[in-house]
Amino acid sequence: MKIVGINGSLRQGSYTAKALNAAADRVRGLGVEVEILDLRTMTLPFCNGEDAYPDYRDVDKLRATVKSADGLILATPEYHGSVSGVLKNALDLMSFEHLSGKVAGLVSVLGGQSNNNALNDLRIIVRWVHGWVIPEQVAIGQAWKAFDEQGKLLDEKLSQRFDQFAESLVQNTRKLRS
Amino acid sequence: MKIVGINGSLRQGSYTAKALNAAADRVRGLGVEVEILDLRTMTLPFCNGEDAYPDYRDVDKLRATVKSADGLILATPEYHGSVSGVLKNALDLMSFEHLSGKVAGLVSVLGGQSNNNALNDLRIIVRWVHGWVIPEQVAIGQAWKAFDEQGKLLDEKLSQRFDQFAESLVQNTRKLRS
Amino acid sequence: MKIVGINGSLRQGSYTAKALNAAADRVRGLGVEVEILDLRTMTLPFCNGEDAYPDYRDVDKLRATVKSADGLILATPEYHGSVSGVLKNALDLMSFEHLSGKVAGLVSVLGGQSNNNALNDLRIIVRWVHGWVIPEQVAIGQAWKAFDEQGKLLDEKLSQRFDQFAESLVQNTRKLRS
Amino acid sequence: MKIVGINGSLRQGSYTAKALNAAADRVRGLGVEVEILDLRTMTLPFCNGEDAYPDYRDVDKLRATVKSADGLILATPEYHGSVSGVLKNALDLMSFEHLSGKVAGLVSVLGGQSNNNALNDLRIIVRWVHGWVIPEQVAIGQAWKAFDEQGKLLDEKLSQRFDQFAESLVQNTRKLRS
Repeated sequence: MKIVGINGSLRQGSYTAKALNAAADRVRGLGVEVEILDLRTMTLPFCNGEDAYPDYRDVDKLRATVKSADGLILATPEYHGSVSGVLKNALDLMSFEHLSGKVAGLVSVLGGQSNNNALNDLRIIVRWVHGWVIPEQVAIGQAWKAFDEQGKLLDEKLSQRFDQFAESLVQNTRKLRS
Repeated sequence: MKIVGINGSLRQGSYTAKALNAAADRVRGLGVEVEILDLRTMTLPFCNGEDAYPDYRDVDKLRATVKSADGLILATPEYHGSVSGVLKNALDLMSFEHLSGKVAGLVSVLGGQSNNNALNDLRIIVRWVHGWVIPEQVAIGQAWKAFDEQGKLLDEKLSQRFDQFAESLVQNTRKLRS
Repeated sequence: MKIVGINGSLRQGSYTAKALNAAADRVRGLGVEVEILDLRTMTLPFCNGEDAYPDYRDVDKLRATVKSADGLILATPEYHGSVSGVLKNALDLMSFEHLSGKVAGLVSVLGGQSNNNALNDLRIIVRWVHGWVIPEQVAIGQAWKAFDEQGKLLDEKLSQRFDQFAESLVQNTRKLRS
Repeated sequence: MKIVGINGSLRQGSYTAKALNAAADRVRGLGVEVEILDLRTMTLPFCNGEDAYPDYRDVDKLRATVKSADGLILATPEYHGSVSGVLKNALDLMSFEHLSGKVAGLVSVLGGQSNNNALNDLRIIVRWVHGWVIPEQVAIGQAWKAFDEQGKLLDEKLSQRFDQFAESLVQNTRKLRS
């Protein structure tokens, strides 16, 4: 079983990346392989509706890596009450053959008060490509005070939500992909 | 009064661009200036959460043009049950100072059956930045058979919906911006 | 100009009713008439898709009162991540002739952390019947500690949001209904 | 394994009931027990936020039946671009103890063109109570021409979508509830 996590923020010192790592660490702690696709380290084009992007080898990497996954962790900053365009564009570059049947867990990160807008939109998007989304999800409000310098979650309750998130993702990916 | 239309599709021969033109022509027919921002002809970066993008003069153009507008036409292909990442990213590059208080009309274009998913998400996004969205909206299903070779709408009812869309956008932008 | 407020909670001591009153008081303070429809004091049937409900005079009252309004305040508890069934059913009992063209402001009340789910759904619902929704909206989290015994808002910032909500509703209803 | 289907329409000759039956028949054809809760034959109160409704024995029936289920079929007419108030109210009468962990399949019925608004809202609602929703869903547009006099689906493609819906519901309820 393999989980692929996508960081949908390009911000330096991204809290979304930290949140994704928090989730990935817990999944690994359950004995499951996690591969991270950090969009900050990939060169992707804007989706133009075409299938092929010959100048962008990272499109192939994105597609092959996601296709190889059983489960996904999609982590996004909430920008303007929805998913980041960066993450949505990465999803737009993929299709049913890469995304259908995958089991996704969703994480969002906000500067202000916690909200589910980005997670709701992501949930509908993943369904659109016939993926599953686990009920457990995490929206981190006021993300600037959520992590310590080592990227650890400071709030115990929030940390427990990540535990439950990882357990559900692993357990249910196993069930649904069996 | 000035309306700015944004084409959120990078596809060659984009039906979204055609739909945007159909709306823009009707707005111009009502005596109102329309400026089109075609993202195919602009070089924009992926939003990294920073304010400044010194290497991308088109960010300034995008922001200044939208800021100068009273009303907006946002046209998007529906990709994976939501707004295109391309359009969302362009919106992410802007902020309250550019978008707040604008009056937007929404148009979406689909290859398959008509659906409101992208329009619903856009409606919530525009509100998030304290914009208005007119109730009239158009989702064009099976867009490949909607236009003739000159880009005219073939279906009379659909054409009338665009008429009403343009009338509402002009009339209500005038009211709300007075 | 007339504003009609609907309380979508049947709970005794409803915080939704208090929130609606907070909004209504501010609208009245701007010199505008407000009529409250408190669903606790009305006897409405479940909507069965029919036009006529001869045994329920309150259906006529609901419809006539809303039809007479220029603007609406829709106040709902957030139940299960959406509008209360009680409020949705009241809206289902009405149609375009009552709701179309009205200018609505939305308020939600939650026991737990603030969230926009109910407000987002309401926004799409109001658009569906060709109503307007003002960008300003209020979601009150942990409503049990939001009000004093006289029903006044304890938090100054929240109180100011209600001020802005009322001002926007009055000002923009005037503009849009002119 | 047991599936419970809820008909969220009170309309006489309800197409929603027909659609629910179409789904239930297919589930039964796969050897799985289905119990139908037809809200037309139950006397439920409007939810007032209380736990107990001593005058309404059907509240107990609703709760016990749903609690006994492994999976759910939620069928709703799309009213005003969302779930019927009737169905939402029935869901409001239940809580985590009845709904959490269930595996739901969603069906909607529209008089006009097909749309996913009600299904999207239901998907978020079911997640809110920590239920699962299968990716397969069916929105029946122009429902008045979808069924023959015996309640059979006239369109072969639509019928196949119901086949896939039932197969996914049964197969994945089995997996997730194991």
